[in-house]
Amino acid sequence: MTLQCTRCSHEHALADFAWRCVRCQGVLDVAGFAAVMPDPTALTRRASTLWRYAEALPVPLPAELTMGEGMTPLVAAQDAPGVLLKADYLMPSGSFKDRGAVVVTALAQQLDAGRIVADSSGNAGAAIAAYAARARIPCEIYVPAATSTGKLAQLHAYGAIVRRVPGSREDTAAAAAQAADVPGAFYASHVYNPFFVHGTKTYVLELWEQLGGSLPAVLVLPVGNGTLVLGAYLGCRELLAQGLIARMPRIVAVQAEGCAPLASAICENLDDSADITPSATIAEGIAIARPARAAQILAAIRHTNGTIVTVKENQIRAAHAALASTGLYVEPTSAVCWAAIRAGLLPLTTAQHDAAPQAVAPLCGSGLKGPSV
Amino acid sequence: MTLQCTRCSHEHALADFAWRCVRCQGVLDVAGFAAVMPDPTALTRRASTLWRYAEALPVPLPAELTMGEGMTPLVAAQDAPGVLLKADYLMPSGSFKDRGAVVVTALAQQLDAGRIVADSSGNAGAAIAAYAARARIPCEIYVPAATSTGKLAQLHAYGAIVRRVPGSREDTAAAAAQAADVPGAFYASHVYNPFFVHGTKTYVLELWEQLGGSLPAVLVLPVGNGTLVLGAYLGCRELLAQGLIARMPRIVAVQAEGCAPLASAICENLDDSADITPSATIAEGIAIARPARAAQILAAIRHTNGTIVTVKENQIRAAHAALASTGLYVEPTSAVCWAAIRAGLLPLTTAQHDAAPQAVAPLCGSGLKGPSV
Repeated sequence: MTLQCTRCSHEHALADFAWRCVRCQGVLDVAGFAAVMPDPTALTRRASTLWRYAEALPVPLPAELTMGEGMTPLVAAQDAPGVLLKADYLMPSGSFKDRGAVVVTALAQQLDAGRIVADSSGNAGAAIAAYAARARIPCEIYVPAATSTGKLAQLHAYGAIVRRVPGSREDTAAAAAQAADVPGAFYASHVYNPFFVHGTKTYVLELWEQLGGSLPAVLVLPVGNGTLVLGAYLGCRELLAQGLIARMPRIVAVQAEGCAPLASAICENLDDSADITPSATIAEGIAIARPARAAQILAAIRHTNGTIVTVKENQIRAAHAALASTGLYVEPTSAVCWAAIRAGLLPLTTAQHDAAPQAVAPLCGSGLKGPSV
Repeated sequence: MTLQCTRCSHEHALADFAWRCVRCQGVLDVAGFAAVMPDPTALTRRASTLWRYAEALPVPLPAELTMGEGMTPLVAAQDAPGVLLKADYLMPSGSFKDRGAVVVTALAQQLDAGRIVADSSGNAGAAIAAYAARARIPCEIYVPAATSTGKLAQLHAYGAIVRRVPGSREDTAAAAAQAADVPGAFYASHVYNPFFVHGTKTYVLELWEQLGGSLPAVLVLPVGNGTLVLGAYLGCRELLAQGLIARMPRIVAVQAEGCAPLASAICENLDDSADITPSATIAEGIAIARPARAAQILAAIRHTNGTIVTVKENQIRAAHAALASTGLYVEPTSAVCWAAIRAGLLPLTTAQHDAAPQAVAPLCGSGLKGPSV
């Protein structure tokens, strides 16, 4: 198994701790690994965590690392027949990022990393800090100086060294990248490390199992850096390759109108992120002006015959309040998909509803950690 | 099925909305219901929520009420071989109280309650407000005036009417009880409503299933109002009555030294709560000076050959930090059991460890909703 550049195909040994291509600085993917879905009989005997798909994951579970992450519930969406919500906010550190973080940390442990570095404005940092703590690997998290006290308290509780970086979100990422280039540092980036995407693909594997061996016609997903879109796409491709689904679901991704470089790229038929001037959005978890994996995300969505839609701030606020009023207390970012569904932006049929759900959207992060809106 | 007084045996129809005995003001229990554990084959086909034990619950699940509560993970306790932690903080509203709240709300919905009233300083209020929102039943939560802004934000997000009551925790309970006595109000009290305990008993039913049809020698549980101790005891009794366990596990309950009326009662061999003058504790979820069900709790613990131990504030703080340093970010109250285990207060053998866990303790509430310590 190696890390292969998506641009120039150069391969890097896992033990080299490369986080982007040493030749062309392109992003890396896992090469030389063939995922296998365990058969249904084996699955009935396994614990309800994402590690039940061990044969589909590129790294084994180290003893004591798991905190029971995965196999999150599917919840009926009130007032939207045919739509299910997957409650990924019910994860150990409070967001879906635990899917990727546990797999990346398992790799760091396997490679005997002495130090983990990550950057985040929120959920990814908490997830990496939690699993690094559990793996007993020292961990440094770079965060924007403006990060809320609640999120800082969580990072400190896990024992992470927190580096607050003045300036923009990009300045934070640059500081982390610089720290990651120091020999011995393992960069557990949710953006660059492709093992993270193998973790997030379990979102789709679980869905497939929970729906009795099928997937819905449409996967509605928030998109910023694309960790969930790319994971979902990877999971679908693997299920398709093994003949476990007959066709690829459409991926409909959602961005906040104020920061929609990928939606603009779809509109303008670009192969990479559009140049935009972002404005503030309460969907801070997907407020990414220049996603490093933009080209991959756009290609993935187009390959599924999907699209990217945008929602306005008032639609996000209303959707966020509407979810809480049905008992689902999530982060504002988690409400963008529900905002898109409520606004009728999805290619759903309304004529009739059979037993199979038409669309599934994730509830990505806990409302208990988000900012008040 | 009726509600029967534990003191004078007077029975009340469910539709009367009695929350304590109309004759003697004693606490009520569910009478005329025989729980049945579904057989293992049936269980393999059911969703991973507490509703998989439908035949063991005294009320059916109304459509759309569930948010996937229950079947929380069992996590290995680092540095304590033979001890498992059950991650009940991974619940829709962020605490184990969802177990009871969903069952009580299902009853309120079945009885066509027009209005739900509850009181809480924390988790129980959030849980009731969440399920009342989902059931679309108007809900009033009485809270102490000093309740933190984060907890108030969660209640408001669910759409609850929040009544802040000046004075002590007892003043809040008295205000709620007064409101509950207005005709038409359904008092969804986690203390008085015995359906709540039928919900919390699923903690033990899940444990039994997760451990392959057995229970550990010791159940370590925090105790304040006793909703989890009484639920666990009820679950154990039901499993024993059906021949599904050979003997009753010992219940070792834990209180904070600063507010330990039940531990004092055990020491002094009393049948009811000891008179104490409480001091402040960070384990605010169990800071109950006069538990309404004290006599039941004491009888239950004695019947299991168990006991009640106390932990000091510095032990709770250290245990809380230790849990977070292994990735488990929970409320301070959730750390009391871990504090007791670390202090060697449990009757665990250290000579040898076989495959079966000796003790299981719950992680009751999310660190994301607790106060900073």
